[in-house]
Amino acid sequence: MTKTDQKQHVVIIGAGFAGVQVARGLGAAGVRATLLEQQNYHLFQPLLYQVATAALSPADIAEPVRRMLRRFASIEVLLGEVTGIDVALRRVALADGNSISYGILVLAAGATHAYFGHDEWAEFAPSLKSIADARRVRSRLLLSFEHAEMSDDQAERKRLMTFAVIGGGPSGVELAGAIAELARYTLAKDFHRIDAKSTTVLLLEAGPRILPAFPEELARYAQRKLESLGVTVRENCAVKDISQVSVMAGNDTLPIGVAIWAAGVEASSVAKMLGVATDKSGRVKVNGDLSVPGLPDVYALGDVALVLDTAGKPLPGLAQVAKQEGYYLGRSLVRKILDGAATPDFEFHNRGNAAIVGRQCAIFDFGRWRLKGMFAWLLWALVHIYLLADFQHRLLVAVQWLWQYATYDRGARLIVEPMRRARCDRAPGGK
Amino acid sequence: MTKTDQKQHVVIIGAGFAGVQVARGLGAAGVRATLLEQQNYHLFQPLLYQVATAALSPADIAEPVRRMLRRFASIEVLLGEVTGIDVALRRVALADGNSISYGILVLAAGATHAYFGHDEWAEFAPSLKSIADARRVRSRLLLSFEHAEMSDDQAERKRLMTFAVIGGGPSGVELAGAIAELARYTLAKDFHRIDAKSTTVLLLEAGPRILPAFPEELARYAQRKLESLGVTVRENCAVKDISQVSVMAGNDTLPIGVAIWAAGVEASSVAKMLGVATDKSGRVKVNGDLSVPGLPDVYALGDVALVLDTAGKPLPGLAQVAKQEGYYLGRSLVRKILDGAATPDFEFHNRGNAAIVGRQCAIFDFGRWRLKGMFAWLLWALVHIYLLADFQHRLLVAVQWLWQYATYDRGARLIVEPMRRARCDRAPGGK
Repeated sequence: MTKTDQKQHVVIIGAGFAGVQVARGLGAAGVRATLLEQQNYHLFQPLLYQVATAALSPADIAEPVRRMLRRFASIEVLLGEVTGIDVALRRVALADGNSISYGILVLAAGATHAYFGHDEWAEFAPSLKSIADARRVRSRLLLSFEHAEMSDDQAERKRLMTFAVIGGGPSGVELAGAIAELARYTLAKDFHRIDAKSTTVLLLEAGPRILPAFPEELARYAQRKLESLGVTVRENCAVKDISQVSVMAGNDTLPIGVAIWAAGVEASSVAKMLGVATDKSGRVKVNGDLSVPGLPDVYALGDVALVLDTAGKPLPGLAQVAKQEGYYLGRSLVRKILDGAATPDFEFHNRGNAAIVGRQCAIFDFGRWRLKGMFAWLLWALVHIYLLADFQHRLLVAVQWLWQYATYDRGARLIVEPMRRARCDRAPGGK
Repeated sequence: MTKTDQKQHVVIIGAGFAGVQVARGLGAAGVRATLLEQQNYHLFQPLLYQVATAALSPADIAEPVRRMLRRFASIEVLLGEVTGIDVALRRVALADGNSISYGILVLAAGATHAYFGHDEWAEFAPSLKSIADARRVRSRLLLSFEHAEMSDDQAERKRLMTFAVIGGGPSGVELAGAIAELARYTLAKDFHRIDAKSTTVLLLEAGPRILPAFPEELARYAQRKLESLGVTVRENCAVKDISQVSVMAGNDTLPIGVAIWAAGVEASSVAKMLGVATDKSGRVKVNGDLSVPGLPDVYALGDVALVLDTAGKPLPGLAQVAKQEGYYLGRSLVRKILDGAATPDFEFHNRGNAAIVGRQCAIFDFGRWRLKGMFAWLLWALVHIYLLADFQHRLLVAVQWLWQYATYDRGARLIVEPMRRARCDRAPGGK
């Protein structure tokens, strides 16, 4: 593999929205690069909550990285986990003991969940960052209903049919709405003994209101809609402890069947390997051209980077931000490598910030104008189908959404986690 | 749950083709029954090999049992693992410590893989019986190509791109053909360093020819077609040992990347809990009305039962056999419970025995007449789309098959198993 020995060889860490976009830019210009990724697929994270709530299958929102980039002969894809970066020797160490040299390093390793010093909560309140997470949450939700169906104890049933979503940002709102709809519309007819419509979904937000990144008017609207779906929104309600059967929020201990964490993320631990300044979420501070101060030929972008907008405010961890940064950096590196030319700083263009509340209901904030309700929901669905990178997925997702829209049914209701925690408080038909 | 205390309450163990069919028959007549199943879904096993080879997603071939039976108010579905059957007290014990009483017991627990006394092979050569199996095989196949791409050692590459399918029955033939197509058509364009078209697929059969249950003419045809896809068929080639990197077959030790077991099944261990006579595959011998000799009000059917045809030959472990038996038993139990009437013995009607060899190629044996090639393949696809119980799955599977037919692409190429065994023999871009 002599090609990569040349000084200008680019190594990209991460095949999320940012990394793939950089690779595409380089590939289109014939610039040689290696894309390192732990998984063999690119994950469409904004729809992960739909896998967790049985609306879609994992493969619908995941695409093999090799396939996305196969038309670019100059792009090499390698499956591997990064364990260290030596910025002096310009070398990335991998978990399998090998290392890879770079001329230019692009860090696009993304973000992971953050439990604010309470990593022990992760077991009881998983968050949604990977396909494995989504499968785990889906299995727990469905199993909780199964156990409720088998229980004769009223209080236990009520506990098993109470779900807590911790964190009132867009992810928490989308998840809470989807769980309420799963219970109310999809599962209601499946069970004969329990009434799935009586499910309680708690949305617990530590701050004074949900959706703090959205205008208050849209957030209030979303809250009303969530409540009409049966979601109980609790504001100013910081979570103090989580166990398998309860969440301590404020001064109350709430018995729950399943808790899900949507309260915080932090930059991938790969960011720390650079040994440079980060903010409190672990994000690497970068210059206007996405280069890392003090480290020549090292760039960071996407959720792993702290990029400021023109007003000096950090850009949020959104797919559109990562994609725009990736598009910019791909083109800017091509100019630098082929022409030795510099590029003006990155500038973000807001394409609209959305959150889906439920069936026929979403909110869209475009800055100057806003949208809510049925039309926002339709726009959201169209945009997301458009964004799904490849045609088969688009078609499959569209078919499933239309089907669910028409029937309230969700096809992917598989419990695939082992039933380790199965507990049953009644003897079905026996003594 | 007083309903189940009555003497005639039916307990069905297993929600495969047989068990679900019995439940439907009872439900349609309003007869009360409890269906016990370990999983929350009914699995369309004949298409499991398509999940293993990245053509379909698990949810496409699995349907929630509750949903299949929700229109029957008299049918209760319980998630639970059977750990014992007390035929004297008429009680089924469950893994969670509870038990359930029955008036009539229907055993439809299916079959599992059999390694003929070599259970240690299961780790190196998984078989395809569950969704977890299919995911494991899919991940191993795809990872083996990834490791080959990362290796600089020619012999190691060749090993990683050699796959052994053990057992030349319909399952082995379908799997070998699908792996060859995955390599030749789908993956070929994804990799830049290896030539996926040079993949070796070995189909190892201990007997004198593959597809022994089919007429020789059809089996020969299938073999020619497999060979044209690049599958190496080895007959009279009994496997003597399997390790992570090789299969010992005959007197040869064949280096392999992945081995898959398709050589044998045996009845579920639940069959033994009855304490009655079984054949060497563990199947319960039953009377012509599917009742178990010596055990009043106990019935067995599907893969767990040894049912003889009119010529005294055992019926094969096929979906159509299980479904017909289930249909028969459902009606026969309704007559018995509601009218106290007996039913003539079960009679099997052969609807045709099929095996798919590859794209545009299948064989069909209807007894009196036979079909092969493109038309058989079309018929197979139509029949299987028809048999997929619900409309959403049908549509999704049809869309994916059409897409794959048009593009040779397979959408579900996710590696979801941890990369524990990752070994990499080269330093990508490094020293």
